[in-house]
Amino acid sequence: MIELAENRYGKSRVRLMKVQHGPDGNELREWMVQVLLTGDFASAHYEGDNSKILPTDTMKNTVYYVARRSSANSMEEYAMELIDFLLERNPQVSSARVRVEAAMWKRLTIAGKSHPTSFMRGSNEVQTATVSRHQKGRFELSSGLENLVIMKTADSGFEGYINDQLTTLKETSDRLFCTELEAEWRYTTEAADFNALRSTIRETMLATFADHKSKSVQETEYAMGRAALESVDLIDQIDLAMPNKHCLLVDLSRFGEENPNEIFVPTDEPAGQIEARVRRRA
Amino acid sequence: MIELAENRYGKSRVRLMKVQHGPDGNELREWMVQVLLTGDFASAHYEGDNSKILPTDTMKNTVYYVARRSSANSMEEYAMELIDFLLERNPQVSSARVRVEAAMWKRLTIAGKSHPTSFMRGSNEVQTATVSRHQKGRFELSSGLENLVIMKTADSGFEGYINDQLTTLKETSDRLFCTELEAEWRYTTEAADFNALRSTIRETMLATFADHKSKSVQETEYAMGRAALESVDLIDQIDLAMPNKHCLLVDLSRFGEENPNEIFVPTDEPAGQIEARVRRRA
Amino acid sequence: MIELAENRYGKSRVRLMKVQHGPDGNELREWMVQVLLTGDFASAHYEGDNSKILPTDTMKNTVYYVARRSSANSMEEYAMELIDFLLERNPQVSSARVRVEAAMWKRLTIAGKSHPTSFMRGSNEVQTATVSRHQKGRFELSSGLENLVIMKTADSGFEGYINDQLTTLKETSDRLFCTELEAEWRYTTEAADFNALRSTIRETMLATFADHKSKSVQETEYAMGRAALESVDLIDQIDLAMPNKHCLLVDLSRFGEENPNEIFVPTDEPAGQIEARVRRRA
Amino acid sequence: MIELAENRYGKSRVRLMKVQHGPDGNELREWMVQVLLTGDFASAHYEGDNSKILPTDTMKNTVYYVARRSSANSMEEYAMELIDFLLERNPQVSSARVRVEAAMWKRLTIAGKSHPTSFMRGSNEVQTATVSRHQKGRFELSSGLENLVIMKTADSGFEGYINDQLTTLKETSDRLFCTELEAEWRYTTEAADFNALRSTIRETMLATFADHKSKSVQETEYAMGRAALESVDLIDQIDLAMPNKHCLLVDLSRFGEENPNEIFVPTDEPAGQIEARVRRRA
Repeated sequence: MIELAENRYGKSRVRLMKVQHGPDGNELREWMVQVLLTGDFASAHYEGDNSKILPTDTMKNTVYYVARRSSANSMEEYAMELIDFLLERNPQVSSARVRVEAAMWKRLTIAGKSHPTSFMRGSNEVQTATVSRHQKGRFELSSGLENLVIMKTADSGFEGYINDQLTTLKETSDRLFCTELEAEWRYTTEAADFNALRSTIRETMLATFADHKSKSVQETEYAMGRAALESVDLIDQIDLAMPNKHCLLVDLSRFGEENPNEIFVPTDEPAGQIEARVRRRA
Repeated sequence: MIELAENRYGKSRVRLMKVQHGPDGNELREWMVQVLLTGDFASAHYEGDNSKILPTDTMKNTVYYVARRSSANSMEEYAMELIDFLLERNPQVSSARVRVEAAMWKRLTIAGKSHPTSFMRGSNEVQTATVSRHQKGRFELSSGLENLVIMKTADSGFEGYINDQLTTLKETSDRLFCTELEAEWRYTTEAADFNALRSTIRETMLATFADHKSKSVQETEYAMGRAALESVDLIDQIDLAMPNKHCLLVDLSRFGEENPNEIFVPTDEPAGQIEARVRRRA
Repeated sequence: MIELAENRYGKSRVRLMKVQHGPDGNELREWMVQVLLTGDFASAHYEGDNSKILPTDTMKNTVYYVARRSSANSMEEYAMELIDFLLERNPQVSSARVRVEAAMWKRLTIAGKSHPTSFMRGSNEVQTATVSRHQKGRFELSSGLENLVIMKTADSGFEGYINDQLTTLKETSDRLFCTELEAEWRYTTEAADFNALRSTIRETMLATFADHKSKSVQETEYAMGRAALESVDLIDQIDLAMPNKHCLLVDLSRFGEENPNEIFVPTDEPAGQIEARVRRRA
Repeated sequence: MIELAENRYGKSRVRLMKVQHGPDGNELREWMVQVLLTGDFASAHYEGDNSKILPTDTMKNTVYYVARRSSANSMEEYAMELIDFLLERNPQVSSARVRVEAAMWKRLTIAGKSHPTSFMRGSNEVQTATVSRHQKGRFELSSGLENLVIMKTADSGFEGYINDQLTTLKETSDRLFCTELEAEWRYTTEAADFNALRSTIRETMLATFADHKSKSVQETEYAMGRAALESVDLIDQIDLAMPNKHCLLVDLSRFGEENPNEIFVPTDEPAGQIEARVRRRA
């Protein structure tokens, strides 16, 4: 006997630009929204019965409709509103999950002053919020960031590791340490100033990265996770992934030149991948 | 108290081109390998103690070394050899996971004949194998494919769905159905002709897709998963993800022209996302 | 005095999927169209006078409208129709240029037979046609292809080059030769079976690549261009760009293993870039 | 008779990270370098004679070697040094062209202060310098930027354009204006403070963009080019390309909601493409 074990469906990559017009200028937000629903959809899979299917096209419309009516100040609050809207109108849905990814936009600085209505795209760093809820259940909120590329040009070494038959890496007390940070932390509350907490967590991680005397990616990653948890009481767990984006020292001795940690080749692949979950012990 | 809850690390995007020289021509394989190790690495995170750390650079070397010595005929067998090599030499590692992604290369056809030593890159379709094992445990093998973009220009409709205040989608008994198939199936064995099974599963899914009278992506997806399980006894579960890559009918009536399902705009975003796990009931 | 020296504008990335319904199945074409107009648009730049500006949004509509009405069998013919349509209705336009890029779709083969209505995305190879015309002038047609990744695993060497203080490359009579072919040829006619000529030129270049005893990318590139010109009288010039996508032999001697041209690392950067224009002497 | 009409070759995508160690911290530069040589290489194409070929691998080494020895303060000066090095040692080369693209890195700000040795990747904006020289000739220098995504949320309209049978665009006096600026300006000198000039030109263009009352992309583009030329005497020409990255107002009236320029869908394709060359009249 063959059966449907699990299923979910929804709409991905719903892009949204929201302009808020104020007396002193505009605010600009660019979001990419994903909606995923789980529920009583077996008859659609087994029999092609669409009577319980909310079209993903309608989800797209809902994303825009709720965004227009929303007065949420954060992605997290907007995601909760969107989930409430969907669960209330769709009893056949047992749980909904919304993920919002925010792109970076910065106000243009013209002649030393912030311009009220002109903006510039920032880095590829993405702010994320992932919220889910079962019918009549509590919200589960996790927020995070991705694609934050950071580099230490000092205070990073890697020594004392296993040296075996296939080892070719040289030990060093001074290397470049470049990573593309991905982090996601879990909230223990449904109501908070999520933007302020995000800012605190992000800045704490960056400060730890910048000042750490790093013996390995592993050690710095744990220190960053620990610092995040120490800085904000309302999170109980943080996942970090820090691919090691290698910058290889160019061997110029073949050409009679020294290379005192000055000229490197940045490489995209292969990349080390270092992952950790740090949590508050129960 | 803050603690490390989980951790793993490894090397990603280790690319490998293997040329096998035979009397009648060469064989060409391009693989991207990822190695991830879990184990007793807490002291690295807590204290910067690297004494149990196998550098990811050494993993890269190991990927090449094992590839050279291997006589495996499949990605799955190669992944098992690589895991064995790593677990045997690294008792501090509790489990290893290897993922191999194979790119498509096709032999050039020149004047109607396969050329023995010249090749062309195929589509972006990727064949995958993900294998893991705990020290002294059994191998767990899953294989799959990704980025297989397929299109039905007939026998696809979408009708009878929920119609509410935010519905704007028109019902249709004749639409384009384009998806980028991602599938992963789980083996119940450690020893099989994995290449032959992969081929059977892939062809079965494609045949089902082509011939299905589709009432929804959901229905076709389940039919494909069911057919895969029916075609190969040695798998017990398959996960499918089928984003709906929409092709929108252009409204030419504004210009006095009919458009009888002939001119469409393909769009990349937003995309429907339909996921299902189909399994053999225990 | 500052002035506008040149200007042109248009619409890029207009995507189009055309399904032709026939008694024995459907034909599927996916095109990306770009339209660029040059003309008397200085007042728009100088004064914001839009009275001579055909909106790019209208160009997009025109792409679809002409595609629906067209019975062209080739991208080249469609591009000429589109240019005629635009030049005729817009006397302020002095010249128009249309570029069409066609994506690869292949019919699915099910149980050994071509399926009439189901398709699979092919490789990233793109077929191109670039057509331009001045008001009352003749059409200028160039066609080509891009992103055709090909590999020779035999009959390729590179020896006898300049050896100076900064040389580290080893000479070899046996290497992998991988490139991403870009070619564009110029037609001397406005009327031909462009699809057939394209096919001949493409196959001739591939056959030359496969069978050439290559002493360098330069030599093979010229041989391919020459063969293309010899195969089709109706072209008088071909531009080729062949980046050398290096596959580096892995040094396994450090680990006590030989590597007889078997295990390579494919790399994306840096890449050699070899360009040539080959023509029929006047 | 078939012949080689033109040829050039070189190395693309040579990536380089340069760390300069100072008493108050480090400077970090990431460059992507391309070298292209033109010269007496016909025998390589015709006969596979490599005796005049400087391998592209050696060019890569040269990029690193010259970067190490260079004390250039700008990409432009470095490019000139690299060209001199290559032309001097290779009399068979008639001209060399070097293009440098610089990625954005910013110093991390920790607790309100610039960190001396830690950095963050900025936006995808790229600074470019393209320099070429014939043997014994003068340098020709052009610099520019690419991928600078900017947005006006006020002071942008588009009205009074041609309205024909295929027009569907609505006139508006208030729209979002988003573009991905590409610009390249030509220097009339070989010696200048290129970094300072670049900064002036870039800031002038941004200020013009921000403050312009825009009647069209065309008008704003010309104003930006004109302002750049007026701000720096040492350039005589600037090319601008400004794709119109459309943000479409969502029609919420279908759902009983107004949308007073608040909720937009950003789209990647199709895109308007507006190009202009602005110059100082001779």
